[in-house]
Amino acid sequence: MYSFKNDYSEGAHPRILQALVDTNFEQEAGYGKDRFTLKAGELLKEKMGRKDVDVHLLVGGTQTNLTVISAFLRPHEAAIAAKSGHIFTHETGAIEATGHKILSIETDDGKLTPVLIKKVLDEHTDEHMVKPKLVYISNSTEIGSIYVYKELKDLSEFCRKNSLLLFMDGARLGSALCSEESDLKLSDLPELVDAFYIGGTKNGALFGEALVICRELLKEDFRYHIKQKGALLAKGRLLGIQFVELFRDNLFFDLALHANKMAGILREQLTKGNFQFLTHSASNQLFPILPDKLIEELQKKYDFLIWEKMDGNDSAIRLVTSWATKEDEVLAFIEDIKKCLS
Amino acid sequence: MYSFKNDYSEGAHPRILQALVDTNFEQEAGYGKDRFTLKAGELLKEKMGRKDVDVHLLVGGTQTNLTVISAFLRPHEAAIAAKSGHIFTHETGAIEATGHKILSIETDDGKLTPVLIKKVLDEHTDEHMVKPKLVYISNSTEIGSIYVYKELKDLSEFCRKNSLLLFMDGARLGSALCSEESDLKLSDLPELVDAFYIGGTKNGALFGEALVICRELLKEDFRYHIKQKGALLAKGRLLGIQFVELFRDNLFFDLALHANKMAGILREQLTKGNFQFLTHSASNQLFPILPDKLIEELQKKYDFLIWEKMDGNDSAIRLVTSWATKEDEVLAFIEDIKKCLS
Amino acid sequence: MYSFKNDYSEGAHPRILQALVDTNFEQEAGYGKDRFTLKAGELLKEKMGRKDVDVHLLVGGTQTNLTVISAFLRPHEAAIAAKSGHIFTHETGAIEATGHKILSIETDDGKLTPVLIKKVLDEHTDEHMVKPKLVYISNSTEIGSIYVYKELKDLSEFCRKNSLLLFMDGARLGSALCSEESDLKLSDLPELVDAFYIGGTKNGALFGEALVICRELLKEDFRYHIKQKGALLAKGRLLGIQFVELFRDNLFFDLALHANKMAGILREQLTKGNFQFLTHSASNQLFPILPDKLIEELQKKYDFLIWEKMDGNDSAIRLVTSWATKEDEVLAFIEDIKKCLS
Amino acid sequence: MYSFKNDYSEGAHPRILQALVDTNFEQEAGYGKDRFTLKAGELLKEKMGRKDVDVHLLVGGTQTNLTVISAFLRPHEAAIAAKSGHIFTHETGAIEATGHKILSIETDDGKLTPVLIKKVLDEHTDEHMVKPKLVYISNSTEIGSIYVYKELKDLSEFCRKNSLLLFMDGARLGSALCSEESDLKLSDLPELVDAFYIGGTKNGALFGEALVICRELLKEDFRYHIKQKGALLAKGRLLGIQFVELFRDNLFFDLALHANKMAGILREQLTKGNFQFLTHSASNQLFPILPDKLIEELQKKYDFLIWEKMDGNDSAIRLVTSWATKEDEVLAFIEDIKKCLS
Repeated sequence: MYSFKNDYSEGAHPRILQALVDTNFEQEAGYGKDRFTLKAGELLKEKMGRKDVDVHLLVGGTQTNLTVISAFLRPHEAAIAAKSGHIFTHETGAIEATGHKILSIETDDGKLTPVLIKKVLDEHTDEHMVKPKLVYISNSTEIGSIYVYKELKDLSEFCRKNSLLLFMDGARLGSALCSEESDLKLSDLPELVDAFYIGGTKNGALFGEALVICRELLKEDFRYHIKQKGALLAKGRLLGIQFVELFRDNLFFDLALHANKMAGILREQLTKGNFQFLTHSASNQLFPILPDKLIEELQKKYDFLIWEKMDGNDSAIRLVTSWATKEDEVLAFIEDIKKCLS
Repeated sequence: MYSFKNDYSEGAHPRILQALVDTNFEQEAGYGKDRFTLKAGELLKEKMGRKDVDVHLLVGGTQTNLTVISAFLRPHEAAIAAKSGHIFTHETGAIEATGHKILSIETDDGKLTPVLIKKVLDEHTDEHMVKPKLVYISNSTEIGSIYVYKELKDLSEFCRKNSLLLFMDGARLGSALCSEESDLKLSDLPELVDAFYIGGTKNGALFGEALVICRELLKEDFRYHIKQKGALLAKGRLLGIQFVELFRDNLFFDLALHANKMAGILREQLTKGNFQFLTHSASNQLFPILPDKLIEELQKKYDFLIWEKMDGNDSAIRLVTSWATKEDEVLAFIEDIKKCLS
Repeated sequence: MYSFKNDYSEGAHPRILQALVDTNFEQEAGYGKDRFTLKAGELLKEKMGRKDVDVHLLVGGTQTNLTVISAFLRPHEAAIAAKSGHIFTHETGAIEATGHKILSIETDDGKLTPVLIKKVLDEHTDEHMVKPKLVYISNSTEIGSIYVYKELKDLSEFCRKNSLLLFMDGARLGSALCSEESDLKLSDLPELVDAFYIGGTKNGALFGEALVICRELLKEDFRYHIKQKGALLAKGRLLGIQFVELFRDNLFFDLALHANKMAGILREQLTKGNFQFLTHSASNQLFPILPDKLIEELQKKYDFLIWEKMDGNDSAIRLVTSWATKEDEVLAFIEDIKKCLS
Repeated sequence: MYSFKNDYSEGAHPRILQALVDTNFEQEAGYGKDRFTLKAGELLKEKMGRKDVDVHLLVGGTQTNLTVISAFLRPHEAAIAAKSGHIFTHETGAIEATGHKILSIETDDGKLTPVLIKKVLDEHTDEHMVKPKLVYISNSTEIGSIYVYKELKDLSEFCRKNSLLLFMDGARLGSALCSEESDLKLSDLPELVDAFYIGGTKNGALFGEALVICRELLKEDFRYHIKQKGALLAKGRLLGIQFVELFRDNLFFDLALHANKMAGILREQLTKGNFQFLTHSASNQLFPILPDKLIEELQKKYDFLIWEKMDGNDSAIRLVTSWATKEDEVLAFIEDIKKCLS
């Protein structure tokens, strides 16, 4: 049974584990004050070409989302998110648990635009309603789409004009930035968003998200918020070591490129097989629509999510590739489809 | 510079790292539904001789404390803790951030007793005050003391009689249970407390606390709370693998015994040197009172906390040993004290 | 300028003021422990034919909604509400501020049904999502519709089968129960819902909502929640006196009947004038669709909300009648429409 | 049975009721946008000689405290209060329920000083602890003491130097300002504190606290917070009318003077009788220490709180006077004491 279920099925890239082993007995300060965390911050700032951002390393995505949003908003302020946004549907009300409403927007492709956000702003006119204040986007989105430079630039300008904070969930930022269709660079982000994070968990690390805070005003006291939310790792070194390893050369991007390449093979072959896709994806998540009978056959050898029942006898499934996905298995999967259909 | 500053200065016991390496490429389900986490739960239940408890693996102590307390209490209910309790002073208001007051009690030794708690109950008589509902204790405490069986039994009975939940923070449970002065066994705990956790972070793991919920009523839906607080690790396997390694034989206890042994050498030698201690500690944290001049000398070669300025020219310092503490360094520290004083 | 803008434009029915004057110098216990509040509770229980419910008097609607919902739910549990529900759009995120997500449902008529709720339940399947637990309905709804017995009975049965709490916002319960189309009686409610409130603010009182808790399990410690939310009025007598006055005879219902009668005249005459309505309303809120030109004319003499721009040159407006609405003004309003159109 | 139990045993000053009757049928905008609320704000600004403050009228004290503190603080920030402070002990954790810790200070007289606060600041040094941000004081305090100009000035300067907000709970501000020992004027307050409120509930109104926000930064969006906390009264006119009546001439101060005068008679006579007091009070709350036997006798005719058991056979009781306290009853009380003792 091979799994295309998600991008966190395996452990970590061997270099990460090796780095943990190599540094294991060095005594270091706790809570992210160690030299590895410091070094990781420096490396990331270099990669972004920006010295004036703050970098914090946290363990996971939901944790980062809730720490950021609760730190940035005042009690009456709300976040805006696509209905498919992770914070809206898949975090057990984590944001609301910190006191904030999420205003959701129905979208086709999981992406927000100035037009869509404008409508929400227009509906929120006085103190009987929450005040929209932060725009949450994911890149890549939960359904595989990505933001290109122009789209993000437009969003950024709109947000600034309307005093909205722009926050990017980058749990799958590697795959997004390394997508063939992307013209965004890591170094563009501090210009365009107020905060974002670089997902390690789904791109080669054991765990870890590198939060980058770009706007001066949002930096103050941020470590208090991390601690309060239970997100300050005692052995912060573990996060530091991993991000140093990912960014001391090109490892982070290489891993994302591999994930995308594997998805690319799947996409190409499925397209050749005349299968439709539920959404246009240029990243490591694909949502092909397959006949239910074929799906049943594939489930005998492969693990994946059934995403949505379509009309008739078809369903969309989700296939996720990662840094660890084996090309052999991808090819075998394609062969198995061909066999089933022949 | 050798550090006695805390018990999370190093990485993990080599067996833990090896286990991570060995299992790295196995594909596993996410979010704690992997076979390692399952296995860890089974091992722990065996060690406790109880099948009817629930085990959840979380990343850190503050995270576990806030998830547990917010899950167990209704909005108007409060926790009771010693003033020295971690949740009261060193978690940046994490519990209050989930909406609950902590009623603090001044103690000499960091431990709560029925008499101390009774006083708090007597002061809280009606709906203009919070309703005390959960008693939080640490074992070992933040100042090194431990609970013996009789003390915990008394506390347990008092809590049940008064409809109070009893929750034990076991960030340093290993050291407590393996203390020479302790007659408590891991298997006693499910009888005596409603929930507790077994700290891995400070006893050989990279990170990880094994929460044990003993009371039926408190088990329901607990995974929802973990997820909501950002505490559900995507690669939950990492926690599972570590706890399997710690508990598949006696490793967890062996490591705690080592920490205690190192502390024992320090205690014995300092006592011989006629130094006083701020608190009586039978665990891996010692609080000797040293002349400020001696402290200054020691700081040149050793890292440790200055805990409290005493009258005159003395201060109490905190020395912490761990699974990783080297006996050579302990002996060198003692020698250096002797040298300074001679 | 006469206002049909809402049902809280005037003070209180003169009998209420007189009762306040008459009792003004009697010394009474504070915080709802006075004899008037006690008496009001007894009167309400009599009217409902139920001794086993708990009655609490609170100042306002948002206050009652947030106190109830935060008291009834555990942290991971969510409320379900119509998108038009007051808690979802017009309370500045008051419910979310207590930590709970509201799952909203698009409806035509502002009313929830088992079918609509079932869909939400089906979408919430595991701990990565909130757990739907409480169904919030308004009667009458924010757009004037009402629940008849059969509808509420079905909802009630569905909720019980699915372990959902059913909570009715009765800010306009008087008008709903006294509607010509209603076959519901006040005494039916304790059977059918787990908690509800009887709105005084919009039906003759200066302020005040009488919350009725029908389910045993929800009663415990409720006064703690009231106090914690800042909703325990020091001079609770003021609430008691008002509800005694409203319910010592038929005043509450008489006032609602008057409001409905005034709305009835408007409805009848507008229907005769061949105007359409945005929603079917059998209560004291009407949403007729009028030509924008006519609206402009009417605005010179009357105050009301423009609810929604329709296609073309029409808009729906909201007309609200109350216990204080003068028949003369209603007739004048109708005459003015006729004049404008002639 | 005559009650000295508190200052909210009666309704309102007759002029207040009359004003409600006189304006009852005027149609007004809801939610504090009515002309009376506007007028009340203007009157208060005049009395303070300050046009640049914001005035909001809320229903009660706990409500005001929780709305203010949750609006002013970021999630990791804490309030500082005397242990006897209302928010610390008598609001059922209302502040904590909004997510904030209260750092309490033991005091003799219920008052905070720079020295006392400095100690708390010194203990809070890093992100593992909450960040003290707001100083909460009551004037008069919960045990009857008052702040004189110099004390408040010192506190004010200290707070500004240390970036602390200073917030005064003025539930009994009338009595404090009108105390013989007070040299503070209402018009001093906007200079000295960042926000405060003027208590109506305990000084002649049915209910109502006039919150004054003095610092520009704290004013933004405050109505959102009021609404979110369920504190925006639908018929806001009721608050407006009452505060207009209290401040259109000197009524507010006259009522406070009467309360103080009544307390003065009690104080003078009890002092003459050689009774000690638990605290020095210059306001409308007295805490005389009486023999338990005498207390038992008095309880047959008078209602009051037994505050604290003293050593031996004495207890401190609390006597509260108000605008409504009758001089005859005060004299009778004194006579009854004399009779008992003779």
